[in-house]
Amino acid sequence: MIDLKPVKGTRDFYPPQLRLRNWLFSAWRKSAQQAGFEEYDSCILEHEALYIRKAGDEISQQLYNFEDNSARRLSLRPEMTPSLARMILQKQKTLSYPVRWFSIPQCFRYERMTRGRKREHYQWNLDVIGEPTILAELEIISTLIRSLNELGLDSQDFRIFINDRRILNAMLEQLNVPQNLQNSVLVILDKRDKLSADVLCSELSNKGLSNIQTTKLIQFLESPNFEAVAEQLENQNVLNELKSILDQFQKIGLGTYLEFDISIVRGLSYYTGTVFEVNTLNKSSRAISGGGRYDSLLSAYGGPVIPAVGFGFGDVVILEILEESKKLPDLKQVLDLVIFALDSKQDEIAMRLAHQLRNAGLSVQAQFGPMKMQKALQQANNLGVAYAIFCLPDELDRNEVVIRDLNNREQKAHSLANITDLSWMGNA
Amino acid sequence: MIDLKPVKGTRDFYPPQLRLRNWLFSAWRKSAQQAGFEEYDSCILEHEALYIRKAGDEISQQLYNFEDNSARRLSLRPEMTPSLARMILQKQKTLSYPVRWFSIPQCFRYERMTRGRKREHYQWNLDVIGEPTILAELEIISTLIRSLNELGLDSQDFRIFINDRRILNAMLEQLNVPQNLQNSVLVILDKRDKLSADVLCSELSNKGLSNIQTTKLIQFLESPNFEAVAEQLENQNVLNELKSILDQFQKIGLGTYLEFDISIVRGLSYYTGTVFEVNTLNKSSRAISGGGRYDSLLSAYGGPVIPAVGFGFGDVVILEILEESKKLPDLKQVLDLVIFALDSKQDEIAMRLAHQLRNAGLSVQAQFGPMKMQKALQQANNLGVAYAIFCLPDELDRNEVVIRDLNNREQKAHSLANITDLSWMGNA
Repeated sequence: MIDLKPVKGTRDFYPPQLRLRNWLFSAWRKSAQQAGFEEYDSCILEHEALYIRKAGDEISQQLYNFEDNSARRLSLRPEMTPSLARMILQKQKTLSYPVRWFSIPQCFRYERMTRGRKREHYQWNLDVIGEPTILAELEIISTLIRSLNELGLDSQDFRIFINDRRILNAMLEQLNVPQNLQNSVLVILDKRDKLSADVLCSELSNKGLSNIQTTKLIQFLESPNFEAVAEQLENQNVLNELKSILDQFQKIGLGTYLEFDISIVRGLSYYTGTVFEVNTLNKSSRAISGGGRYDSLLSAYGGPVIPAVGFGFGDVVILEILEESKKLPDLKQVLDLVIFALDSKQDEIAMRLAHQLRNAGLSVQAQFGPMKMQKALQQANNLGVAYAIFCLPDELDRNEVVIRDLNNREQKAHSLANITDLSWMGNA
Repeated sequence: MIDLKPVKGTRDFYPPQLRLRNWLFSAWRKSAQQAGFEEYDSCILEHEALYIRKAGDEISQQLYNFEDNSARRLSLRPEMTPSLARMILQKQKTLSYPVRWFSIPQCFRYERMTRGRKREHYQWNLDVIGEPTILAELEIISTLIRSLNELGLDSQDFRIFINDRRILNAMLEQLNVPQNLQNSVLVILDKRDKLSADVLCSELSNKGLSNIQTTKLIQFLESPNFEAVAEQLENQNVLNELKSILDQFQKIGLGTYLEFDISIVRGLSYYTGTVFEVNTLNKSSRAISGGGRYDSLLSAYGGPVIPAVGFGFGDVVILEILEESKKLPDLKQVLDLVIFALDSKQDEIAMRLAHQLRNAGLSVQAQFGPMKMQKALQQANNLGVAYAIFCLPDELDRNEVVIRDLNNREQKAHSLANITDLSWMGNA
């Protein structure tokens, strides 16, 4: 007997789960397309080198990686952004900028499973490439908000907690942390909720930070608001872009969705500016979505400097939140009618009828095998179809079938000859 | 500099390729849903044990397999049927039969690349589980035909070449090939076009077949028609189901699509009855689709005997054929209009307007940055949108924008105040 369960940390999608997944993907696609974004995809299998970073990003240690039969080092993608960067660089001269692309890749990370985290998830990625101004942030974040609205969530349900890496870097500068260490210090700081105070101090101390520097940093990340942050900073210029972004969102009426939050760091070393996370108002779950500006990633891969902003939005956390708040839709199978052949003598005619009605554009399920009429009606009701057609011996002798309208519970015989004109629909 | 190309044998999907992929997937989904099939999915990563078979199936040697951090033997799926069988067995007591499911999984095989074959492809799978009669074959194959029609192909373009493993097994029986070797002999015979006559003979001889047996087998597989096959067979009963299937397809008017072909074997050892392949009339390419009845797979995995019929239909071969015959559609980005802010002073108003029109349900791309009017119009035409809106200084002073209808090449100023009522659409 083989193991019937899916691999640990991965999921099977039976039809009810897949309907929900398709519903979520449709909302993502619709929101992206409304904002003029185009869909792309790469392969789930990539060269491992794409994910090896010096700053100690957790993701580099969580790869599903292996060697293929030709000794290539490969990895299942843990995130989409590196593949996007690779694809942009491959065609950089022929693309027209800013590029506005989205994708819904499945991503893999080998890590400990907790609420909201499996070892694979599907992650909507939306990116603007080649736009240096905050117009990129405005497009990206307003599309993110629209997608959450599309899923039935509003400003009572979520916030976009926003920060800017340049503010964090300015404080590191102020505390004399050398520039080449700043990214790895930020990667460690992002994990601070998962680490004990001792381990955090020792990891930062390994990077050369003194206890005083560490204490000041942690204090800075606990600043309650914009003013408190501004007070501590010598370099006030780094606050300007964030102020403009918040200001613009006020103007287009989305101001309530955004909240400045100096504690948002993000665990990927490639962010260079704005960083943000979506969460419930009290941050009661893992981040629903996260993203930011990564102006140096493409040059880190050997390309020119091309500014970029984007986010990832996974399927696991949002579906958990929607389920807990009873906001998941009740989705039925796509089906117009079901045809019953309650006796095998009627199989052939039922099959032919199903074929004709499908050719006429209807979604038709054909049910064969002996079944009581009552059971058949119950099954039709469960399927959520509007009509059921019964192939019964007496009626078939007159070249007729019985069509039942399940909404008004009426039924009548109908000639087989003109059944594909669908005149019986709506007034059966 | 990192390697910008995708892993050998895998593909990137830039927006034009992804539009085609989505178009193909939509046709598959539509055909499946019209026939009352429900979508499911499993994870691309499975336990390797699912694919290890005794009969020497080529697929077992072509796995992308590896050990994860907990020493689990895993594999990227090379085909979907084993995952389907696993999922069915997992919930066998709660499902209502026959189960009619479909999926569009990506599958991986490490093999030499040729025309129509990469190391990954997407493969539409459609299966009926739990139906022992030819009703399953009728549903499966008629849906396959409808999907090819949906893609613009008809009986001048393709045939379903159909055979039955029971006929092949009867001949093996007749030639005294022991039952426990028959599956592996069929797996070898399926490769006969790729092997030299010598290698074929030696592989079959390794299974204990004499040269005379081999010669007779090859001759049998070259029988030109049904009558020639029937003449050579002692056991005529094994021809009955295939005759019924061909007969039924005649009756529903799809007879021309099917052609009996004793040379169709299929390379998977789990087939037990009907086997078929879709190809062009002269079999000029790799099989477009292939499938059959596999009544013993679920029991081979330790479950009860549950009859099953299904097929796989990959994206690579069909897209090549459609391209060569110039039947690929010319697909544009989903977009209703584009807004141009030709000067950065208009960025803010353009962004706000885009936001409002998206909220009104339109797909809107906002274009920023200096651009000549002529260039902007050309870009709008390339995008294939119906309207372009220009935010120009003089008009904005009067709280107006210029809306251009790109179909009739007319434009006029329109007040910003009531632009979201969309009254300008259709009569701009």
